[in-house]
Amino acid sequence: MIERIGTSLRFTQGPFVESFASTAGAREGEGPMGGCFDRIEKDPYFGEKTWEAAESRMQSDTLHAALVKGELRAGDVDCVLAGDLINQCTGSAFAMRRVDIPFLGIYGACSTMSEALLLASVLTQSGACRRAAAVTSSHYATAERQFRFPLSYGGQRTPTSQWTCTASGAVVLCHAGTGVRVAGGCIGRIRDLGVTDATNMGAAMAPAAADTLLRYLHDTGTAPGDYDAIVTGDLGMIGTPLLHELMQQGGVDIAGVHHDCGVMMFDNAGQDAHAGGSGCGCSASLLCGHFLPALREGRLHRILFAATGALLSAMSAQQGESIPGICHVTELCAGEVEAC
Amino acid sequence: MIERIGTSLRFTQGPFVESFASTAGAREGEGPMGGCFDRIEKDPYFGEKTWEAAESRMQSDTLHAALVKGELRAGDVDCVLAGDLINQCTGSAFAMRRVDIPFLGIYGACSTMSEALLLASVLTQSGACRRAAAVTSSHYATAERQFRFPLSYGGQRTPTSQWTCTASGAVVLCHAGTGVRVAGGCIGRIRDLGVTDATNMGAAMAPAAADTLLRYLHDTGTAPGDYDAIVTGDLGMIGTPLLHELMQQGGVDIAGVHHDCGVMMFDNAGQDAHAGGSGCGCSASLLCGHFLPALREGRLHRILFAATGALLSAMSAQQGESIPGICHVTELCAGEVEAC
Repeated sequence: MIERIGTSLRFTQGPFVESFASTAGAREGEGPMGGCFDRIEKDPYFGEKTWEAAESRMQSDTLHAALVKGELRAGDVDCVLAGDLINQCTGSAFAMRRVDIPFLGIYGACSTMSEALLLASVLTQSGACRRAAAVTSSHYATAERQFRFPLSYGGQRTPTSQWTCTASGAVVLCHAGTGVRVAGGCIGRIRDLGVTDATNMGAAMAPAAADTLLRYLHDTGTAPGDYDAIVTGDLGMIGTPLLHELMQQGGVDIAGVHHDCGVMMFDNAGQDAHAGGSGCGCSASLLCGHFLPALREGRLHRILFAATGALLSAMSAQQGESIPGICHVTELCAGEVEAC
Repeated sequence: MIERIGTSLRFTQGPFVESFASTAGAREGEGPMGGCFDRIEKDPYFGEKTWEAAESRMQSDTLHAALVKGELRAGDVDCVLAGDLINQCTGSAFAMRRVDIPFLGIYGACSTMSEALLLASVLTQSGACRRAAAVTSSHYATAERQFRFPLSYGGQRTPTSQWTCTASGAVVLCHAGTGVRVAGGCIGRIRDLGVTDATNMGAAMAPAAADTLLRYLHDTGTAPGDYDAIVTGDLGMIGTPLLHELMQQGGVDIAGVHHDCGVMMFDNAGQDAHAGGSGCGCSASLLCGHFLPALREGRLHRILFAATGALLSAMSAQQGESIPGICHVTELCAGEVEAC
């Protein structure tokens, strides 16, 4: 059942997280989270001829790994929701060409994993699908040459810039089951406070994260202390303190339970990652590599997963437009349904 | 209620089409369908400084027009699903920056309106949203310079090429109501038969249209004669006979009831449109300008709306990749629920 409370959703009887898998590139594998991924691939081409084909291969491999871990076949999944950062979302389209599952393409920049989980939850809880998968990816080399400069140009990165992760995560939700489940969610609204610096996406996304988190906490009558972790996507070193400040302006202190995937992914000083990691695959791979295992194993019981997206393009930045931010929230919990 | 039959969905008690609006550019307004649009805008810049800003303005204006026609305010709509063809879907993101409604970005190239209607139907029928809007747009000048050449280059167009329409359509669905409703749908699978000619998208999309239409007809036990019209997105002059042939290979003759929005939009010889119109706004504007009014006024009673998408990018074409096609189907009907 789906209940609507204010602008938020509550899922009262599932869906359940049936399986999940994560993939990371070499640099991500060398970072502090390197031990959590199912696969670390040292070849940035993933055996393909172009970086774009590599990202598609990574995405379809990650979905395949989730199916194998769950002892599922493609025919067991009624729908895949997938997205990435490449122009016209070809990273996902070409990945899904190999996967004979009905496909809904979505785009929310680095918020895509939250959007996919939310829609997959609605599809499975409504009876539209028995199982739905949520998959996202990003690749440093595809993103860098598309959003910024050709890699061979050797452009200098600014201190506020984030490093697009080569990573992917895939989650299979089932309408019935036991264990970890999606308990609720909130669809994001665009927030744009006028940040025009395309190398400071953390600042552009923080207001959207605060907006959706404050709405979800208000609608559900919960406080940060009710959660073991409030996980954001890729606000990084710059956006994280801005989110804390915006939440405090809303009367909520999340600093004690907040974790940002962009901050977590790299040893930001030692690995020269500047303000942290980013990309659709950053929060997706840490969700599937770190947070979902912790929920399944009982180390965490209830978390909010709030991936954040900066909805810019290279052209919108060149045209002087500011950066619209968005953040979708999903609540994940383990154990009895009543306990959430 | 949502029922799953095979790989298709049936919506048994709605959702209902509460309001809709369409916008077209000057060239589209001069074509054979020119009389059906709510607004024809002769200024290709829609009063803005760039074509990209023009497309966003067109999209938010079209959604606003649908709200006004339905005597609705933004706060009455719980979610907007929107998409377009511009890199990173900025056409929609920047449009939705003006619209304070929770936003889910989707990407299905020219199939986007079908995808948006399907997801909006699931969201409203599941209790997740009371009302959800589906909005898409395309603009000749934004698409041409992004997918092909700068307009000022004056590139020669091939005979198989289609003309990206400057157009937009917006539909507001409500969980309850009367009149025209969405009665079912089917999520598309990617079909790629190896077409590598980026100027022949009709041929690339026809197999996907045949796959989803055949599945929906099979699952629902219906035949083309049960529908007043089977409407595809932008197969154009080349893709249309290919679809007829593929359907016949599946044992189904749709020629008598089939209409393709890409064929309909222009006087293809007189307006030098070659193989017809295309773009997310082509089928969306004809759905909202022509087909939904015909259903509301009783000139049509039951149709399939099957927008088709070619999931390529300029880079995928340059890299020699073939073109994955996709097509999502929605069934729209008028009158009593029992009659559908």
